[in-house]
Amino acid sequence: MSAKILKPQAISGFPEWLPEIRAVEQRWLDTIRSCFESYGFTNIETPSVEALDALLAKGETDKEIYVLRRLQADAEEDDSARLGLHYDLTVPFARYTAQHFNALTFPFKRYQMQRAWRGERPQEGRFREFYQCDIDVIAVDTLPLHFDAEMALIIAELLQRLGVAGFQLHVSNRKILAGYVRALGVDDAVAAIRILDKLDKLGSNGVSEALVDGLGIDAARARQLLALGEIKTKDAGFVDRVKQLGAVDPKLEEGLEELAFVMDQLAGLPEGMVVADLSIARGFDYYTGTVYEGRLIDYPGFGSVVSGGRYDDLAGSFIARKLPGVGISLGLSRLFSKLLAEGLIAPARPVPTEILVVLPSEQRRAEATETAATLRRRGYKVELFHAASKLKRQLAYAEKKRIPFVWFPPFDDEGAHEVKDMAAGIQETADPRTWNATEKPVA
Amino acid sequence: MSAKILKPQAISGFPEWLPEIRAVEQRWLDTIRSCFESYGFTNIETPSVEALDALLAKGETDKEIYVLRRLQADAEEDDSARLGLHYDLTVPFARYTAQHFNALTFPFKRYQMQRAWRGERPQEGRFREFYQCDIDVIAVDTLPLHFDAEMALIIAELLQRLGVAGFQLHVSNRKILAGYVRALGVDDAVAAIRILDKLDKLGSNGVSEALVDGLGIDAARARQLLALGEIKTKDAGFVDRVKQLGAVDPKLEEGLEELAFVMDQLAGLPEGMVVADLSIARGFDYYTGTVYEGRLIDYPGFGSVVSGGRYDDLAGSFIARKLPGVGISLGLSRLFSKLLAEGLIAPARPVPTEILVVLPSEQRRAEATETAATLRRRGYKVELFHAASKLKRQLAYAEKKRIPFVWFPPFDDEGAHEVKDMAAGIQETADPRTWNATEKPVA
Repeated sequence: MSAKILKPQAISGFPEWLPEIRAVEQRWLDTIRSCFESYGFTNIETPSVEALDALLAKGETDKEIYVLRRLQADAEEDDSARLGLHYDLTVPFARYTAQHFNALTFPFKRYQMQRAWRGERPQEGRFREFYQCDIDVIAVDTLPLHFDAEMALIIAELLQRLGVAGFQLHVSNRKILAGYVRALGVDDAVAAIRILDKLDKLGSNGVSEALVDGLGIDAARARQLLALGEIKTKDAGFVDRVKQLGAVDPKLEEGLEELAFVMDQLAGLPEGMVVADLSIARGFDYYTGTVYEGRLIDYPGFGSVVSGGRYDDLAGSFIARKLPGVGISLGLSRLFSKLLAEGLIAPARPVPTEILVVLPSEQRRAEATETAATLRRRGYKVELFHAASKLKRQLAYAEKKRIPFVWFPPFDDEGAHEVKDMAAGIQETADPRTWNATEKPVA
Repeated sequence: MSAKILKPQAISGFPEWLPEIRAVEQRWLDTIRSCFESYGFTNIETPSVEALDALLAKGETDKEIYVLRRLQADAEEDDSARLGLHYDLTVPFARYTAQHFNALTFPFKRYQMQRAWRGERPQEGRFREFYQCDIDVIAVDTLPLHFDAEMALIIAELLQRLGVAGFQLHVSNRKILAGYVRALGVDDAVAAIRILDKLDKLGSNGVSEALVDGLGIDAARARQLLALGEIKTKDAGFVDRVKQLGAVDPKLEEGLEELAFVMDQLAGLPEGMVVADLSIARGFDYYTGTVYEGRLIDYPGFGSVVSGGRYDDLAGSFIARKLPGVGISLGLSRLFSKLLAEGLIAPARPVPTEILVVLPSEQRRAEATETAATLRRRGYKVELFHAASKLKRQLAYAEKKRIPFVWFPPFDDEGAHEVKDMAAGIQETADPRTWNATEKPVA
């Protein structure tokens, strides 16, 4: 063993929590999984790596990819083993669907909760290693709009179940912006939409300036573009407001109808949880219909914690079949670490243990072990203290680890079992085979 | 989007399962977590990477480490960002304990269930990416022997709960071999122990040969060594058998006492689940006391699926405090994939869905949606069919996905709710607010 001491330290961009925070994160992961499964989504887990050419198929994130290399690799081997850590869960899902196409039943509804990696400069809410929680549906040839609404419904329910206050999901449909821009006869449609998408960051004046000065669009058209981008309604009311703007285009019509269907399906959600917001476009190159962007109202500068949308052809890089998909992704590490930094995550107890069984003496070890086993069989999380130390020391251990109950097996042949509720300070006789905690202690 | 189609394919050494197998793996992970927590172990999760010098601190696994490199890294940057994927969970745990030393309460009992990576040549049971499930206890200065017994107890209970037949845990104590070899006056103790450790592979004759011809030990001593290595008892009976061999050494005494304590604590386990096996030594350089090795009786050539032991100083590379530890690790991917290959893992249903709610028509969508929501609120996993297709098609979907119940909301204003048990073929009227599945469908 080396005599040198290495300073153990956090690695920038690779978050790590103390047990009492990790316990909360784990509870979140359980809630997310339970929510996704309640809608019939099935779990898959893909390797951490993909072939590098698969990761580069969309051709735009190459700078962020971590490539693997064996420390002792030979020069020639280095070139053959081109594997990179996945930077999202969409590419792996597309590859998985294509690879296992014949073994899957469509529409294929899957969820995936895994880490992803990007070699970016770390900053608030942006990590090099982070959890993403994704649901996607993929179908052959056509995919009903039903799923576009379901995605929003699930994510809204999930954020409620996680107890995240002030979450708002912005929904739009790319066809609305595309059709409208075409109806106005704007030359550089892509650039115009990209500018409108920044409305929440640049503000109305900023967008106007960028359209007129930057793109050379005339002031009248810029006003018309802005008028569309500023439409935000809590229901399908956006349809009338767009019609009042006068632009006519079949794609625009299609987009309005689709988004109206989605918003109608979401009418049962608490008011303000979902808004139709015609400025948003998201990852411009991928999405072809519905788009989602979820934000925290209280932290407008923080950006999105949820994003997603519909693809016309999700696995097109991997299979010569048309496979439309729609999906939504929760940036778990991003959201969780933000709420943690804002003091909105209450730490859990640092151990799962519900009952500490005291070890009265070495002579009585067998009985104490059996007591612990009995309580464990009954579903309790139980530690047997590790040494026949002074009682004071055993109790101090329970207090330090915030274990809610301490169990005292008989200290001699005449003694009885007793249990102490540490919070209430009450100690009473009890039978390990029948005792019930007044309420199941929280994790 | 690229027009080129990439052939999607499995990456050697990086396992990936279909949904119906992943569901079983997930159930296993749940069982493991539940078992570890029932003994009061707390979860931590560390980053996938560690600083390269931390990974190399023990100086012997350098060939297997995957180093990360940003695809577009500059030459100088490449040298600064020396991060490697962890190859086990022990190094990360040691670093974590040292780094967060002041925030933890000792003895610190943690479990960790994560992937690890090794750039080895893949073969049966050996992957480049694999799940390890570890429990360890670490304490300051001294660590009671209680934990050495608890580790074995937990792993034995776990394998029972997972339903793995023919699992056997071999336990020994390194002090026995070390003391015995010293008592015999063998010169190259390290080499002799290493040979004895291979008794299950080489057999008695092979070990004798290696000791005599390879190491130059005289035949009498080789017989004495072999006599110790061949001792295997289901309880503390090994003590008398060792004493009969006549060797006397204080370290040997200590080891016998420790192992006898551990075996006594395990007396309640089903016979044959744990054996004292004096030939095993395991990762020779690390362990200083108790050692564990778990094997599958039916696959003697497959090697170990569980391993672990006691360290005198677990975090010595990172902190100038003496922190003894004892831990045990289940090679989950290794065990799971072996049982899968042997046909011993029964696939689960490919979806978690318990009830498919039929969509009778677009006109009745609102009621069908509400029916699904009602059932979901009552804890069922429910899919609403995605289109008002012909009934036959909706039923075929349920059959293909092996969804056990199909729910029919009223098809008109006079209709009633009905539910069909797909396995039993029975359909009856039911109220979504009160209906209960005859038995909760299995995953």
